[in-house]
Amino acid sequence: MSQTDMTIFEKLESEVRSYCRSFPTVFTKAKGYKMWDEKGTEYIDFFSGAGALNYGHNDPTMKAKLVDYILSDGITHSLDMATAPKAEFLTTFNEVILKPRNLDYKVMFPGPTGTNTVESALKLARKVTGRTDIISFTNGFHGMTIGALSVTGNAFKRKGAGIPLQNVVTMPYDSFVNDNLDTLEYLERFLEDGGSGVEIPAAMILETVQGEGGINAASFEWLQRVEQICKRWGILLIVDDVQAGVGRTGTFFSFEKAGIKPDIVCMSKSIGGYGLPLAITLIRPELDIWEPGEHNGTFRGNNHAFVTATAALSYWEDASFEKGIQEKSERIFSFLERIVADYPELKGEAKGRGYMVGISSEIEGLSGQIAAEAFERGLIMETSGPKDEVFKLFPPLIIDDEGLEKGFKIIEDSVKAVLGSKELVTS
Amino acid sequence: MSQTDMTIFEKLESEVRSYCRSFPTVFTKAKGYKMWDEKGTEYIDFFSGAGALNYGHNDPTMKAKLVDYILSDGITHSLDMATAPKAEFLTTFNEVILKPRNLDYKVMFPGPTGTNTVESALKLARKVTGRTDIISFTNGFHGMTIGALSVTGNAFKRKGAGIPLQNVVTMPYDSFVNDNLDTLEYLERFLEDGGSGVEIPAAMILETVQGEGGINAASFEWLQRVEQICKRWGILLIVDDVQAGVGRTGTFFSFEKAGIKPDIVCMSKSIGGYGLPLAITLIRPELDIWEPGEHNGTFRGNNHAFVTATAALSYWEDASFEKGIQEKSERIFSFLERIVADYPELKGEAKGRGYMVGISSEIEGLSGQIAAEAFERGLIMETSGPKDEVFKLFPPLIIDDEGLEKGFKIIEDSVKAVLGSKELVTS
Amino acid sequence: MSQTDMTIFEKLESEVRSYCRSFPTVFTKAKGYKMWDEKGTEYIDFFSGAGALNYGHNDPTMKAKLVDYILSDGITHSLDMATAPKAEFLTTFNEVILKPRNLDYKVMFPGPTGTNTVESALKLARKVTGRTDIISFTNGFHGMTIGALSVTGNAFKRKGAGIPLQNVVTMPYDSFVNDNLDTLEYLERFLEDGGSGVEIPAAMILETVQGEGGINAASFEWLQRVEQICKRWGILLIVDDVQAGVGRTGTFFSFEKAGIKPDIVCMSKSIGGYGLPLAITLIRPELDIWEPGEHNGTFRGNNHAFVTATAALSYWEDASFEKGIQEKSERIFSFLERIVADYPELKGEAKGRGYMVGISSEIEGLSGQIAAEAFERGLIMETSGPKDEVFKLFPPLIIDDEGLEKGFKIIEDSVKAVLGSKELVTS
Amino acid sequence: MSQTDMTIFEKLESEVRSYCRSFPTVFTKAKGYKMWDEKGTEYIDFFSGAGALNYGHNDPTMKAKLVDYILSDGITHSLDMATAPKAEFLTTFNEVILKPRNLDYKVMFPGPTGTNTVESALKLARKVTGRTDIISFTNGFHGMTIGALSVTGNAFKRKGAGIPLQNVVTMPYDSFVNDNLDTLEYLERFLEDGGSGVEIPAAMILETVQGEGGINAASFEWLQRVEQICKRWGILLIVDDVQAGVGRTGTFFSFEKAGIKPDIVCMSKSIGGYGLPLAITLIRPELDIWEPGEHNGTFRGNNHAFVTATAALSYWEDASFEKGIQEKSERIFSFLERIVADYPELKGEAKGRGYMVGISSEIEGLSGQIAAEAFERGLIMETSGPKDEVFKLFPPLIIDDEGLEKGFKIIEDSVKAVLGSKELVTS
Repeated sequence: MSQTDMTIFEKLESEVRSYCRSFPTVFTKAKGYKMWDEKGTEYIDFFSGAGALNYGHNDPTMKAKLVDYILSDGITHSLDMATAPKAEFLTTFNEVILKPRNLDYKVMFPGPTGTNTVESALKLARKVTGRTDIISFTNGFHGMTIGALSVTGNAFKRKGAGIPLQNVVTMPYDSFVNDNLDTLEYLERFLEDGGSGVEIPAAMILETVQGEGGINAASFEWLQRVEQICKRWGILLIVDDVQAGVGRTGTFFSFEKAGIKPDIVCMSKSIGGYGLPLAITLIRPELDIWEPGEHNGTFRGNNHAFVTATAALSYWEDASFEKGIQEKSERIFSFLERIVADYPELKGEAKGRGYMVGISSEIEGLSGQIAAEAFERGLIMETSGPKDEVFKLFPPLIIDDEGLEKGFKIIEDSVKAVLGSKELVTS
Repeated sequence: MSQTDMTIFEKLESEVRSYCRSFPTVFTKAKGYKMWDEKGTEYIDFFSGAGALNYGHNDPTMKAKLVDYILSDGITHSLDMATAPKAEFLTTFNEVILKPRNLDYKVMFPGPTGTNTVESALKLARKVTGRTDIISFTNGFHGMTIGALSVTGNAFKRKGAGIPLQNVVTMPYDSFVNDNLDTLEYLERFLEDGGSGVEIPAAMILETVQGEGGINAASFEWLQRVEQICKRWGILLIVDDVQAGVGRTGTFFSFEKAGIKPDIVCMSKSIGGYGLPLAITLIRPELDIWEPGEHNGTFRGNNHAFVTATAALSYWEDASFEKGIQEKSERIFSFLERIVADYPELKGEAKGRGYMVGISSEIEGLSGQIAAEAFERGLIMETSGPKDEVFKLFPPLIIDDEGLEKGFKIIEDSVKAVLGSKELVTS
Repeated sequence: MSQTDMTIFEKLESEVRSYCRSFPTVFTKAKGYKMWDEKGTEYIDFFSGAGALNYGHNDPTMKAKLVDYILSDGITHSLDMATAPKAEFLTTFNEVILKPRNLDYKVMFPGPTGTNTVESALKLARKVTGRTDIISFTNGFHGMTIGALSVTGNAFKRKGAGIPLQNVVTMPYDSFVNDNLDTLEYLERFLEDGGSGVEIPAAMILETVQGEGGINAASFEWLQRVEQICKRWGILLIVDDVQAGVGRTGTFFSFEKAGIKPDIVCMSKSIGGYGLPLAITLIRPELDIWEPGEHNGTFRGNNHAFVTATAALSYWEDASFEKGIQEKSERIFSFLERIVADYPELKGEAKGRGYMVGISSEIEGLSGQIAAEAFERGLIMETSGPKDEVFKLFPPLIIDDEGLEKGFKIIEDSVKAVLGSKELVTS
Repeated sequence: MSQTDMTIFEKLESEVRSYCRSFPTVFTKAKGYKMWDEKGTEYIDFFSGAGALNYGHNDPTMKAKLVDYILSDGITHSLDMATAPKAEFLTTFNEVILKPRNLDYKVMFPGPTGTNTVESALKLARKVTGRTDIISFTNGFHGMTIGALSVTGNAFKRKGAGIPLQNVVTMPYDSFVNDNLDTLEYLERFLEDGGSGVEIPAAMILETVQGEGGINAASFEWLQRVEQICKRWGILLIVDDVQAGVGRTGTFFSFEKAGIKPDIVCMSKSIGGYGLPLAITLIRPELDIWEPGEHNGTFRGNNHAFVTATAALSYWEDASFEKGIQEKSERIFSFLERIVADYPELKGEAKGRGYMVGISSEIEGLSGQIAAEAFERGLIMETSGPKDEVFKLFPPLIIDDEGLEKGFKIIEDSVKAVLGSKELVTS
């Protein structure tokens, strides 16, 4: 293929486009943890499609199954009709994921995006409880449609609504005020005091590790106490595992190690395995009081995604995959801690859990510069947090040692380069 | 493959599932206008994935291109990074669709579902105008997330929100009160009287033919007057062409023959060509004031869909495809009119435009029985309208004469059978 | 008293002040249908405190009772404690007003203003039905607090809220579109069509004659059909009789001649008799499901107003008062019709019912000029309507023939003067 | 007068009535700090009309002026026309209250109740800032109309709305969580973190001492820091001084000793002096951007109240009145502290400031029993707090030593009696 004219995007695509501004090249090919652009430049992917590519790009097993399925004229689009790939996905998900974890959920297929599963969860929680309010948490990120945006903290995104966002109360996430202050004592005072102005909500919705909000990991104890508070007050607990789920924090569900069992779980991104659009909402069976068709959507039956999603679950059939993630997680975090220690000019703090980590820098704009520098050196990495103060390591779970080391080296070199140029400027 | 146990869905899938109740079999394969279930039963598809399969199932050209792309490890998931297939889609869409129709739109990629494009359109309209209200129309259907649900008329769906739906005023669609009453006179009185309680809204959103709302086709004159009213009052006009677009009513955009030029157009369903999730929001360039990333989502960069969407556009390169649809449309409508005339017991009325037609029966429940009977006889067809009073013919645009005739015969036989059994009961 | 410096108001009072701009003098004394300013200028009052002074100023009987009560150290302020004057008011209201009209209502005392009774009515209707929406009507005026403002049509007033006003649907009042078009057919289509986007509301709220909205009088038949529609759909009917009640339209309640029985009636303004703050909400006994204290307020127990309100009810003890109003009403309306006929340049239309009438002029600004001219000539009269297109005759019910004739003369002279000066300008 | 049948209220008044249930007798006469019922029983008033009777009942000076005014046919009801008594009130208020305190406010007259002034303040704050949200505080009480109810904390009252209350964020009042925890650190984190989900609000609204919310007095330091935070973020500070104002806490405005200057002040209750309905909204002149008539109401011009309000201000002409309140305040608080110390079974805590104090008991229902017992013994006193856990001493400011001592004795006797009967039960 000839070189693509980058002005095509400027001319024809909306100003809302964003990542193509941070990574200004035209990508054509990808495999595992590597991506290539038109010019043949190779990039290490420490971004993983913002968590949609936990198994890396174009996994060969999934690819083979997908191509076979297409070639056999397997049904592609099926709304919520019964299809063989859907039956297989449901069965496999139940056998490989739910049963071994002693979890019992009905699976709902909302529209195939994160925001759609969140909207379905909020609607169901309100229907089940007959209440209107939802408690969300500071720096939570749940999606861009009005219902999901209402429970999202980011002021820039919220303003995009163009209308006041309603029926939501934001409470402080773990360590929001400072590390010592117990944010749940606050929260519970609001629930127990009949004059607090905060109604008992239908549900609380949270991410166990906040991806977009700045790689904030809630402690297991905090999560356990949230669950207890929910039980005490008859509030449903919704875990939005769209970004933190599917192994990203070290276990399939991000909440496993905390030992909690949410009432509703939202999943999307990597649940499809291959980067194909899919979302599921897991519902405690007693709560599954939907009327048929009460929430629907055109692309609930993306059979290509069912095929790859089912194939992806084979990674979880024995414990080795999970063990491998957890081992490498420690290496990744050690690397970040070393960087923080070796480069005090960063004023950095290592944050996160599993493969969902990063360094937060107190110096405004620095994390963005490091990510930009890393891109120049062949690494894809993004920033997050309300001020983009964190550069974020999101390698695919299948990355090997060589890939990790290459990535680490680019990051360290980028840190050095950015800090170096700073010194030149400030000296 | 062995036979799938249908109880899998009952046990593992949420009660919200719907179409699998109307069409209780497990589908495995599909091609063109035909579908097959596990037992090998063949079905004529007069449903087309509710408008997502206008080119039929598994079109061979698109299939070949898709498989080639996958085999070459073309990038699958790219958020809104620049990729070669996206560039190609943008260019082709501009050349083949927009330019020849003298239309100038920027293309936004929201999350790949209809409700996501609608949410993006409403947000942008509010941002551009600084106003909060939207005027929607009776029996409009725009999606299930809170923003899109707010502009959707159906009471059952609205109740699913669990919260009052706000910032919307519903006005009567063409012929809503009765055939003689001019609904736009009402609407404009509300706009011009400063004591009407209705603010000048940010936008009006409408479908030119209402699919879910009962196959109501607005007259071209009514659409033209809506456009004039919008211009007079500085209101943006949003056409939701998710279901009526991509040739369904006889032209690529459903509004072409009315000669109007909406400010924003919402597309999804068949825009991906192959039934793969994709949605686009078309924006008049002056209105494209989005900040980068102000509205985002994980699956905006579904490259498989870009590949098939681009291939699909070749259907529109010359006029013959469009001409063919329009010719067959007349045959379809003639068939419906004959049915209405020949079976007065139906108390039927032929409705709709293009390949988006149906018969509305005054007898409660009858249309559902006819659709169920047709399924028994090998035809997939759904009902719509606030009381499911319409059985809906939605064949793929690529259907041939044989397919149409087979479908017609099943429908007529089903009508006869249902009316016959009625007589037995009532005699 | 020395002359008051009018700049006191400019310096010390908020810009929100309004009537003191239309009637720029300092009033000191009033009696019956006359008012005097500091300079001793006498004014005929065709304004009656916007309906709060139906019995004229400082009625001698009420005055005597009030002074006696004060001198005896009768309790002044009592919240909702039991007091003798309250008991007397309740008993007298029941005996003199409710029983003879075959009406059975419980009396609620909200805060002593019109907006407070409306707020209490809306809250109760929502509580009783468990629904959230209210249907209000174009050009309805119900008050300035957020709940009452939500059901008020005027765009200028609504904008003052600073937030989107919610949970309300505005429907067209009688003759809103044009005189021939049946606005209730339109309304009922929205109720009966499950896809209309309009939920069955908790209540409809309306004025039988719209005072602020432009002196629009609904026909009795229209009111009867509204009542029937409410019954058919289980919707509560709230009549806001704050301005049209207490004899203003010819009967104590404005809805008597229409023969309807609202579920809830809102009263204020003249219910206190002497111009003292009082409001009551009348509730069909079965609907009186308030919890004690669920709606409260500091000035519910204005015993001075109870004393004068009770005294005022003696006007209604025999039929002559009512009969007198109705006879004079005809004279007033005949006068208006003659003015319209004799001065075609007015492009006027006589509107209203009883002592709640006016002339609407198509010529922008003219009605305001006539009212200003009348003030110069010694008559107090205001304008109303979304464009202040109506000059409004609101004499007190106790006005005698001499007062009426004086007023008429000033009005006709003012019309002549304004039209005369117009001719000079336009010729 | 003959004895009133108490069933009149049961039969004819709404179930919403409340205080007549706590004080089940019919009051007829009142003077200073004493009230009498029909049977001639005398009561000491430690309630003061919930703060509307700070000058006691039927003050002789005000009475004389009021009767003179009425007898002279002074204008009673004037909407917002200019009248002599209004000019006098404005001038006197400016001279006696504002100037000596170095305060500069424009005076707005909303409808004559607390909730109306609050609604006007919220509307103006939103208009001035163009923002929609208001920050209110836990256990705040601001009124019963929808706007004021939205900023009220009490769950029972809020539920009465029947709709979700919107555009408000509740923050913890001073000492809400516990005595050591700094609630403003929490609040400010929400403002400064762009991902907090809390927008910069139009205003914060608060009472310096929360009357209905449980006699919670904010520390002066807390109030000062709230003011600083408001300034830092460009947020308007609204002090609702409806209950705590007019001397109740020891100074005319409750915020004087804290040294803060609110942008908007809401006043009602005792501002009218004699218990007559009046409310004013004080507005920093730069913020007075109301359009004429943008917020209106029928009883803004209650001239009887202007007369008594002006007379009442003479109390404030020299410092002795204020000094007297402050001296007696100490005696009252000492009494409460002694009761708490002497009766440990109360598990009590003395709370409040000035003449706005009470004892909070941890024992459920106890405070209500003490208030009921006190009524039996001839003292009027109410309870407050989300669980009615506080019995509340609200004597009029003009009470003399004898009145205080009598009241104290009844309270102590009541405490003894209730605790004594408890012992009998539990022993």
